[in-house]
Amino acid sequence: MKRHKILLVIGDGLGDRPVKELGNKTPLQVANTENIEGLRNSMIGLMDPVGPGVRPGSDTSHLAILGLDPYVYYNGRGIFEALGAGAILNKGDVAFRGNFATVDEDMVIKDRRAGRNLSEAEELVRELNEIGEIMGVKVKFYRGTEHRVAVVLSGEELGEHVSDTDPHEEGLKVRQSTSMSQDVKDSRTAKVVNELTKKVHEILRESELNRRRQERGLPPANIVLLRGASSYKSFPSLSSRTGLNGACVTATAVIRGICRALGLETSTPPGATGGINTDYLSKGREAARLLKEKDFVLMHIKATDAASHDGLAKEKVRALEGIDRAMGQVLNQVGEEMVIGLTGDHTTPVELREHAGDPVPLLIYTPEIIVSDQFSHFDEIQARKGSLRIRGLDLMNLLLNYSNRGQLFGE
Amino acid sequence: MKRHKILLVIGDGLGDRPVKELGNKTPLQVANTENIEGLRNSMIGLMDPVGPGVRPGSDTSHLAILGLDPYVYYNGRGIFEALGAGAILNKGDVAFRGNFATVDEDMVIKDRRAGRNLSEAEELVRELNEIGEIMGVKVKFYRGTEHRVAVVLSGEELGEHVSDTDPHEEGLKVRQSTSMSQDVKDSRTAKVVNELTKKVHEILRESELNRRRQERGLPPANIVLLRGASSYKSFPSLSSRTGLNGACVTATAVIRGICRALGLETSTPPGATGGINTDYLSKGREAARLLKEKDFVLMHIKATDAASHDGLAKEKVRALEGIDRAMGQVLNQVGEEMVIGLTGDHTTPVELREHAGDPVPLLIYTPEIIVSDQFSHFDEIQARKGSLRIRGLDLMNLLLNYSNRGQLFGE
Repeated sequence: MKRHKILLVIGDGLGDRPVKELGNKTPLQVANTENIEGLRNSMIGLMDPVGPGVRPGSDTSHLAILGLDPYVYYNGRGIFEALGAGAILNKGDVAFRGNFATVDEDMVIKDRRAGRNLSEAEELVRELNEIGEIMGVKVKFYRGTEHRVAVVLSGEELGEHVSDTDPHEEGLKVRQSTSMSQDVKDSRTAKVVNELTKKVHEILRESELNRRRQERGLPPANIVLLRGASSYKSFPSLSSRTGLNGACVTATAVIRGICRALGLETSTPPGATGGINTDYLSKGREAARLLKEKDFVLMHIKATDAASHDGLAKEKVRALEGIDRAMGQVLNQVGEEMVIGLTGDHTTPVELREHAGDPVPLLIYTPEIIVSDQFSHFDEIQARKGSLRIRGLDLMNLLLNYSNRGQLFGE
Repeated sequence: MKRHKILLVIGDGLGDRPVKELGNKTPLQVANTENIEGLRNSMIGLMDPVGPGVRPGSDTSHLAILGLDPYVYYNGRGIFEALGAGAILNKGDVAFRGNFATVDEDMVIKDRRAGRNLSEAEELVRELNEIGEIMGVKVKFYRGTEHRVAVVLSGEELGEHVSDTDPHEEGLKVRQSTSMSQDVKDSRTAKVVNELTKKVHEILRESELNRRRQERGLPPANIVLLRGASSYKSFPSLSSRTGLNGACVTATAVIRGICRALGLETSTPPGATGGINTDYLSKGREAARLLKEKDFVLMHIKATDAASHDGLAKEKVRALEGIDRAMGQVLNQVGEEMVIGLTGDHTTPVELREHAGDPVPLLIYTPEIIVSDQFSHFDEIQARKGSLRIRGLDLMNLLLNYSNRGQLFGE
């Protein structure tokens, strides 16, 4: 009985609803996905990533898909962003997601992203890392993509139940972080966050880099807005739960962070951007390379979600065709002797421009002889006729079963 | 509103995948099952006995099917084997499954089953029961089928987290049992097991019965290998949970044990063997007889699983046809005024020869007028088009509902 390798392809925000611009078809319906259709020996169906009707973030859904109940294991995105940005976390560290932003002299937010393309981010992070410590708590900044940073507080007695300093809207003042519990750990942490925010503003306001930005008519990156505090505790690794050693190909920090938290190797190959301009074939080549070393490779493609959030139906179709080409690349290099899962982490209907709680189409291909579902095209409509109707938490068990790697429960 | 009786037919390892030898059809597809097809007023569909993709043992899946979550209630097979072999267990008793086996003078295993057909088992068990007590712990042996025994330890302060003495492979030495926790109960129990194993070897080595076996060129049954320690605590009975008084027709010790643990009467009629040579009509007659006395009868047939583990596709087809005849026998004797469930406890694909985590086909017949699923033959392919898509834990509720026995939840 051969143990197969497993490729799991996640198109971020993959699923959709009928779109007017596409003649009331879904992007998957109109996409030309010949490599996927070539996988005839497949089951198809629908998956509720977290639960029926639940609108998941990419973080909670990826946890579920990788076998950890997000209602048990998810406590905010900060730690995953920090891990994704390269942080090494220890138990009790509290991490935040952050944005470089622009405030006026009254701390009112003028631009939540400081103009978005912040070429000085690297140097600004270096300047901020000279802070080193606030109230006896170690502070470390990590650069994310564009205007994004992650901030990690390390020390004794830190809490994660503190509010964001980011008011999530321009024209409002930077918020004071407050404790959301009776725990002294949280009130102390909120104080650290507020002191840190003050200090960050002092440094950035005086930064030579910002002076030069303003000379060029660019908004100064003179504050860091924090959100999503979460405290790190270690996660049960994928290998300890399933015996799989795994890797993940992604260009998205939070997915990289989740995969690292679960002990997967992560890789962002050249040309992978996390946007609609990503290099699909490069991702496919990297997934194929990793499948030689690993039992399990997660290939995450963000372009579908990016197109959806911008309401670009035709771009989403192109992104889906890109996913198909990436899969074709893997199949060319590796052959068909593996189990393949293809699904989304949630739907992001292009007309809605937001994550929805609709079920996502799911395909499981296996080289074993199985009862396959008859389908001519992989889309939301045909998926409804398939035999699979599962939750995200069930997916790993199915992949293990069809790759002959499932553990017997009982005797 | 008439309360119907319920017959639940479990074909062990019933489900399958397309089999080359059968022209890429499943055993159910090619089986002639006219009695089942006669049950037109049925719903069909798929059931995940424990969960999608989860590969269940017969023990965990039967617990689920009988309404107890195995993730809560399952703690090893030993107690069920012991109950199935006739043991009366008290809270805290620790039970093991065991094999009579053959070791050489270095305790290296030569035959894990001491030649398999052990005609002296009854007398050997009697000799071993003279041990009576080890380190203040009562020891009792129970004879199983062929080379199998169950061993029960009774006393204060016993633990179940102890390792097997059975290395599960020939050519290896008998293992020392060790504690798998920090609890002194477990280390004490491991010691008892090791002392017992020594004592068992001393007695069996000197047994006149083994001397005679060797004279006839047969391997001596000179050790008992132990595995699957589990501690007994009482289970919520089927009748307390559902109001059903029930019985089970089976020739398989572990199923008998599970049913006894849940308060069902158990019966093994003449000719029922647990193998492919079982007497199907005898089972049907016994189920029909019990349906006169009881609300609920589980008819378990092992032959399908036995054929699957041996990779015998045509034997599996014959076993399925046997199940159909057994059901025909019940219908002839009882009539059609009952609810019938027909499913498997898991799939055992004949080409795989092992339990798989695939969903199993399920049929629910009811004499009530319901929306029935259109089907012409009960098999894995048509089951996919049916309306049922449930977990094992849901099955009893469905049977109760369609027999007009469900309790109202709320008002």
